[in-house]
Amino acid sequence: MQLGIIGLGRMGGNIARRLMRAGHRTVVHDRNREAITGLEGEGAQGAHDLGALVQKLKAPRAVWVMLPAGEPTEQTIAQLAELLEPGDAIIDGGNTFYKDDMRRAAELAKRGLHYLDVGTSGGVWGLDRGYCMMIGGEKDVFERLEPLFKALAPGVGDIPRTHGRSGEHQRAEHGYIHAGPPGAGHYVKMVHNGIEYGLMQAYAEGFDLLRSKGGNELPEDQRFDLNVAEIAEVWRRGSVVTSWLLDLTADALVADPQLSQFSGSVSDSGEGRWTIDAAVEQAVPVPVLSSALFARFRSRQQQGTYGDKILSAMRLGFGGHVEKKAE
Amino acid sequence: MQLGIIGLGRMGGNIARRLMRAGHRTVVHDRNREAITGLEGEGAQGAHDLGALVQKLKAPRAVWVMLPAGEPTEQTIAQLAELLEPGDAIIDGGNTFYKDDMRRAAELAKRGLHYLDVGTSGGVWGLDRGYCMMIGGEKDVFERLEPLFKALAPGVGDIPRTHGRSGEHQRAEHGYIHAGPPGAGHYVKMVHNGIEYGLMQAYAEGFDLLRSKGGNELPEDQRFDLNVAEIAEVWRRGSVVTSWLLDLTADALVADPQLSQFSGSVSDSGEGRWTIDAAVEQAVPVPVLSSALFARFRSRQQQGTYGDKILSAMRLGFGGHVEKKAE
Amino acid sequence: MQLGIIGLGRMGGNIARRLMRAGHRTVVHDRNREAITGLEGEGAQGAHDLGALVQKLKAPRAVWVMLPAGEPTEQTIAQLAELLEPGDAIIDGGNTFYKDDMRRAAELAKRGLHYLDVGTSGGVWGLDRGYCMMIGGEKDVFERLEPLFKALAPGVGDIPRTHGRSGEHQRAEHGYIHAGPPGAGHYVKMVHNGIEYGLMQAYAEGFDLLRSKGGNELPEDQRFDLNVAEIAEVWRRGSVVTSWLLDLTADALVADPQLSQFSGSVSDSGEGRWTIDAAVEQAVPVPVLSSALFARFRSRQQQGTYGDKILSAMRLGFGGHVEKKAE
Amino acid sequence: MQLGIIGLGRMGGNIARRLMRAGHRTVVHDRNREAITGLEGEGAQGAHDLGALVQKLKAPRAVWVMLPAGEPTEQTIAQLAELLEPGDAIIDGGNTFYKDDMRRAAELAKRGLHYLDVGTSGGVWGLDRGYCMMIGGEKDVFERLEPLFKALAPGVGDIPRTHGRSGEHQRAEHGYIHAGPPGAGHYVKMVHNGIEYGLMQAYAEGFDLLRSKGGNELPEDQRFDLNVAEIAEVWRRGSVVTSWLLDLTADALVADPQLSQFSGSVSDSGEGRWTIDAAVEQAVPVPVLSSALFARFRSRQQQGTYGDKILSAMRLGFGGHVEKKAE
Repeated sequence: MQLGIIGLGRMGGNIARRLMRAGHRTVVHDRNREAITGLEGEGAQGAHDLGALVQKLKAPRAVWVMLPAGEPTEQTIAQLAELLEPGDAIIDGGNTFYKDDMRRAAELAKRGLHYLDVGTSGGVWGLDRGYCMMIGGEKDVFERLEPLFKALAPGVGDIPRTHGRSGEHQRAEHGYIHAGPPGAGHYVKMVHNGIEYGLMQAYAEGFDLLRSKGGNELPEDQRFDLNVAEIAEVWRRGSVVTSWLLDLTADALVADPQLSQFSGSVSDSGEGRWTIDAAVEQAVPVPVLSSALFARFRSRQQQGTYGDKILSAMRLGFGGHVEKKAE
Repeated sequence: MQLGIIGLGRMGGNIARRLMRAGHRTVVHDRNREAITGLEGEGAQGAHDLGALVQKLKAPRAVWVMLPAGEPTEQTIAQLAELLEPGDAIIDGGNTFYKDDMRRAAELAKRGLHYLDVGTSGGVWGLDRGYCMMIGGEKDVFERLEPLFKALAPGVGDIPRTHGRSGEHQRAEHGYIHAGPPGAGHYVKMVHNGIEYGLMQAYAEGFDLLRSKGGNELPEDQRFDLNVAEIAEVWRRGSVVTSWLLDLTADALVADPQLSQFSGSVSDSGEGRWTIDAAVEQAVPVPVLSSALFARFRSRQQQGTYGDKILSAMRLGFGGHVEKKAE
Repeated sequence: MQLGIIGLGRMGGNIARRLMRAGHRTVVHDRNREAITGLEGEGAQGAHDLGALVQKLKAPRAVWVMLPAGEPTEQTIAQLAELLEPGDAIIDGGNTFYKDDMRRAAELAKRGLHYLDVGTSGGVWGLDRGYCMMIGGEKDVFERLEPLFKALAPGVGDIPRTHGRSGEHQRAEHGYIHAGPPGAGHYVKMVHNGIEYGLMQAYAEGFDLLRSKGGNELPEDQRFDLNVAEIAEVWRRGSVVTSWLLDLTADALVADPQLSQFSGSVSDSGEGRWTIDAAVEQAVPVPVLSSALFARFRSRQQQGTYGDKILSAMRLGFGGHVEKKAE
Repeated sequence: MQLGIIGLGRMGGNIARRLMRAGHRTVVHDRNREAITGLEGEGAQGAHDLGALVQKLKAPRAVWVMLPAGEPTEQTIAQLAELLEPGDAIIDGGNTFYKDDMRRAAELAKRGLHYLDVGTSGGVWGLDRGYCMMIGGEKDVFERLEPLFKALAPGVGDIPRTHGRSGEHQRAEHGYIHAGPPGAGHYVKMVHNGIEYGLMQAYAEGFDLLRSKGGNELPEDQRFDLNVAEIAEVWRRGSVVTSWLLDLTADALVADPQLSQFSGSVSDSGEGRWTIDAAVEQAVPVPVLSSALFARFRSRQQQGTYGDKILSAMRLGFGGHVEKKAE
């Protein structure tokens, strides 16, 4: 098949490459001309503006937008909507808020345009490992473009089959699903990231407990000087906490068990936040997912929070306690 | 009545004073001779060692130990146990772990000695405001010493009476109770402090939300520059969140709304920790009380936690994300 | 002064009464004619529709809307906007989301109309105790209507003055403030309610710990049978956790320490939810405020959550654990 | 090598089997004679009491105790201590509290006996998959018995090697480590289980968010009817949240997406609780690990907690709110 791709960063470029490896044709565009030239050298057809990109695609067209969520994606889709023809489809593969998908799909439908939202997990590893995709939108449009998704997905591989599954492998076993109507793909991806935050924080707290067991909060005869790199490694082998995130942790700890290159300040992104907003809207208690997000917020306030100072002020007030200065 | 008092710090000294104001007699001891001399000047009888203190008290004696919990209290009680006679009573007014009370009371009982554990709230304000006391131990011993507790307690005062209470004022309305067997006094005080941590953290988070509303996490047209001192004050007046802790916060914010004297590093003490251990033992979910304790733990790690670095290492691993250095 | 009031429920009716007690005149409207008639009997001027209400007020008019947040308030304000004249003011005293205030104020300003948002705490007690008010909107409009707010507020009363305050009593000490531009009043009230949730949950967890200490999760020799009503009472007397919410708890526990009339299912309202959304937006960690909200969500799922079943399914999977049926 | 094994339940029996498969000899004992007979049929040597077991082992002996933690293990080790000779070793493979290991090792050392604590993960899958082992105790004793651990461990298998590791495979890569002095093995296993709780709860909350998106907390046009079994499956394929726990979840959801066999009441065990106690002792914030434990506590109180009723009582008190009965 033929696919237009806009945005040739880490993700978009590799999506183009993986599709071409599978024999599909791509027409690619990026603000950065060098990115286009680079992919032309790998077999893609370059387009220096959106008009050219649309021209080079045969109807019914499919254009994958792989840009930062928010304004860049929003504006590009608005421009595309002016250029495309009824029956064409826009695919948003970025990290868009699912309610924006719902709004956009309704707007584009008025022009006869289709819209698929593709939650994509796999990050920098996707080119080789394949992309795990959760896709929202009209089912027949999804099915028309399914060969593309199948090529991008990891495929069945050598992962042991889920107990109870038999017969021909289903889409999910290839690594992509049609999740539901517009927005459903990004909704599922959002929850995926919310879970990811929780998993990461569970490991983080555990490793903190391993490390602090050797620290001076404890009397000397209660301390263990534990080897965190060895522990991460052994847990990869038959334990209950085996996971890909643990594999990555083991990688990092081999190189530097102190993790001294990191400041301790941790970023967060939209999905982690929207997950909490969704929980609030749906009245679902999510103490773990919210704690994971809050730990990141807290990590960025290394000078102490105003709230902490309020605590100290109260303690001085009722008990005459004067806080020690921070270590 | 006559009471021996060991430990003439902020709390012990004021307990002596408040008792003498009410006409009781005190025999006082402290490692620090000046503390003894000072109280002698206010009418107390000084004792330069525990033996002298016991000598100056008439049987059945009562000795109030007001020392830091742990070793200082433990050793003093062990020494007293050697000096006292059957029928005498030891009162631990410090912040002892309630299981230590249970053990001690059983040991002392073998010698015919009585033991009361008194959880005492009121801090630096107790001399004038009175002490709120939760008392564990044998009921008849409690009743024998009740005039002392009544003198230390705030008394009925002008606090509006609880709806549904009528007739003569009960002990609780005077500000002291017999909570139950040995350990019950400190158990109730421990829970009191656990709640205190939760209340404080609730205000802390709220004031953080007020302050951050003017901060640069938000676009300019979404900011409000709120006056936290005025808000604390107005909430003291007929709102649902009126409390003594809010009064103290209002005091502090009048003086310095920035709270710039505080580093943001907040201490914790035994009770807050034991409360969580008790919840774990009793299988009670305490998300608020534990969050309040953890916020204090976190506040003291201003250089970033090892756990946070684990997060950054994973993020680099799966997404190639390089964390920004801390602000 | 003269004030129009729309919505004569528990809050609106008492606001009218408290204003009339202070000598102000009211023109009142409600869908329910009996509510109007009732207040007419207490000195108010009734109006059977919005048009009549506007007619009976002299320009520049002020109309207080005291209706459920959301559609009822939104529609009423839209209708009023058609009827009022430039220079008139609408006051929203309900529990409106502060971003709705910001939008409305901007829309009304185009017609020359003013808008004040009044966060009001005090509930069923306000008639006698006075209302604590946090007010957003243009400062000069606030000042024009200040006599009304002053009459509704609790006033200075006999609450001990905050340390460091002196001279003439400020607005905040009377129980109302001008918090900032449109939305600021409801924002501050929202945070107030967020704090309220946290405070309540702190007490709830503490009382759970008191009660469970007598329960069968513990071996018999570790149990204390504690009197929660006495404990609530004694904590009102000089302890650090003294508050109005504790007073209410003490009231309830005198009547029935088992609280057997309650199912354990607890409602929540918009402010508690918006507080968490604001924290997410402002990147403020609020573990206590969110835990308090989640505890309420959880309390309403008495048949077990789907998430809990996921846990059981995993446990069966990795350990062969078969969960016991719920008690 | 030769190993004595006491306790032939799910774990102990399979440990004997896996060792025999690798050519080691076992002398086995259980209270239940049939369990002994069964393993005799598979090549083990049976012993009908501890004395016989000790007799049948050649010095220096090694005896693996695989019993429930607490009294059963404690008593058996005490009896063994009377029967064994200096130089012999006791291995505790159960879920013992690490401070009990420290105490026991010190006591046994006085008799010249050695003690290893082996934290063992792998559950019902260990026979085929191998056991992941974290081992505490004297290093030379560990090394003497290493062939047994190597046989029980999963071995290198086909798991992709951690980046940065090269050369001969280390112990950790075979699936076992010497974690440190006595207690270190169970300490690491305890933290492992703490992390496990956190991971499980992260997935549980995520699946709750997927399911509730189709529920009636939302207006109809905001709902997605998501297929949780397909989502679990697709996440196994190249996503960031891939893990063994997710594999098990996918297994369960294929069979019954409603999970209707489960009541929602979830058990917990010692390690999850001790992890929180350790965090409190070491002053490490563990909001995720504690939230996961508390969610289980809460799941077992399906009639509503006393704390929740306290909330309702306050709400009635300040706002006149009458809670709806639970659904």
